[in-house]
Amino acid sequence: MKYTVIGTGAVGGYYGAMLQKSGLEVDFLARSDYEHIRQKGLKVESCRGDFVLDRVNVYPKPEDLPPTDVILVALKTTANGTLEKLLKPVVRKGTVILVLQNGLGMEQELSLLFPEAVVLGAMCFICSQKKGDGHIAHLDKGSISAAPLREGDGDLLRAIGEDFTRAGVEITLLEDLPTARWNKLLWNIPYNGLSVVLGADTKQIMESPSGSRLAKALMEEVVAGAAACGCSFAPDAVEKMLEYTRVMTPYEPSMKLDFDKGRRMELEYMYRRPLRAASEKGVSLPHIAMLADQLAFLEENRK
Amino acid sequence: MKYTVIGTGAVGGYYGAMLQKSGLEVDFLARSDYEHIRQKGLKVESCRGDFVLDRVNVYPKPEDLPPTDVILVALKTTANGTLEKLLKPVVRKGTVILVLQNGLGMEQELSLLFPEAVVLGAMCFICSQKKGDGHIAHLDKGSISAAPLREGDGDLLRAIGEDFTRAGVEITLLEDLPTARWNKLLWNIPYNGLSVVLGADTKQIMESPSGSRLAKALMEEVVAGAAACGCSFAPDAVEKMLEYTRVMTPYEPSMKLDFDKGRRMELEYMYRRPLRAASEKGVSLPHIAMLADQLAFLEENRK
Repeated sequence: MKYTVIGTGAVGGYYGAMLQKSGLEVDFLARSDYEHIRQKGLKVESCRGDFVLDRVNVYPKPEDLPPTDVILVALKTTANGTLEKLLKPVVRKGTVILVLQNGLGMEQELSLLFPEAVVLGAMCFICSQKKGDGHIAHLDKGSISAAPLREGDGDLLRAIGEDFTRAGVEITLLEDLPTARWNKLLWNIPYNGLSVVLGADTKQIMESPSGSRLAKALMEEVVAGAAACGCSFAPDAVEKMLEYTRVMTPYEPSMKLDFDKGRRMELEYMYRRPLRAASEKGVSLPHIAMLADQLAFLEENRK
Repeated sequence: MKYTVIGTGAVGGYYGAMLQKSGLEVDFLARSDYEHIRQKGLKVESCRGDFVLDRVNVYPKPEDLPPTDVILVALKTTANGTLEKLLKPVVRKGTVILVLQNGLGMEQELSLLFPEAVVLGAMCFICSQKKGDGHIAHLDKGSISAAPLREGDGDLLRAIGEDFTRAGVEITLLEDLPTARWNKLLWNIPYNGLSVVLGADTKQIMESPSGSRLAKALMEEVVAGAAACGCSFAPDAVEKMLEYTRVMTPYEPSMKLDFDKGRRMELEYMYRRPLRAASEKGVSLPHIAMLADQLAFLEENRK
């Protein structure tokens, strides 16, 4: 299968480069660093070994993208308002859209926009950052779990899973996308928001009694929100996620980098939609609501 | 009656100076600016009119303080561990200790330390700041409400109230100290903490939809905590307090100044004790607990 990466950043750049390195054909859509990537390719500085792709099929505009089988959506969700325009030129009947974003509800929206496509969701457990033009730093982790939006699309997902596996990306295939999305939020909701409000990385948060208490309280509310939506986790999910974070390489989550660089934060899909989903089931999540409002305030009143 | 001010800062300096200006005898205990005040007196820059007290009875050590009738306790509660030592030299049988601090439980503690004293509590609704040595800026408001810890001490409180009234300080005498303390927390808990976490003044908080939503959610929990402790407010107390803050001169609460200057914050009496009091009644206050943990984290991890 042939792949097209929409958004050649920390996530799309890394997984796209891994797929190309394994021998697959990959097209990349890039905006700010299109010219740089066209001339110098993609540089991946990875904890599993650095590599450079000298020649990369990169395009500056969606209209220029060649036909494809699988589209990896790897933009920040703050750009999701542009997705219809970006994907329209490449989506045909049966085209796979694999969403590598964080949050809740992206797949449902894309499925409404492109009913002819097959929409899949991928949760990326990766610590990576865009260091500069055409330059990705992969710091830690890297596995993916993925699930289809519609039950019948498991075979296509398995085929894609084999490509990722051959490319050296650990991938777990799941059946229940909503539960997988909520499970990813178990990490994203506490650590993204707290890292901004507290001005701290994961290590500072977890080494502080008050910091880890905050992370735990937020996680417990994610579990409650998930349960309200019919998604349940293992009983030790919170403890495991706290421990997972405690032992991982100190990390500044993407939202902190966004905030520090004056970019918009992914508040809508990562906070507002989960809050709304739980609220529609009659469940309020006060810690998460408070964190979301603090982040909204900080974004509005940025120095 | 003769007054002694323990802590010649934004609050003690202002009210002590007002009492002395009205003709009463006032002694001041000062630490860092003792020498400055001894030589140059106290300067009060006030929205109601500036004034200077050229001659001030100021003392550097509690052992030097002359006998007194009423002690105004106006230190930050972060220094309450030192109060026993500071007050011991001046408390006699019947000495009045009037606590001008913010928080919950200070009067009960002082009453245990000094059972021979009469303990009263005062809630100061004042925007004031210490600008420098012997220099107080009174920006807005200034009224006090006061209540006795023990029922029988109303007459003494009334006598003190008359002194304050004659000194131009608006004072309201109340009977129920716990309710008055919780009522003061209705302002202190949201605005002190949020101003630190959000890096904002009261105007920025109230002009932002997310900021005012945060303030309101925190206030509603103060009401719930108060109710758990048997203290009830008027049904429109939250709305009134939001409006009061919306129209007041933009203000950086004392906790923000403390944080910005690297001083300890009044977390114990302003957050931990109210949380504990509610928790002992089986009521949890998740927003306030979260804010308290965020503040604790920021204090521990100060840059």
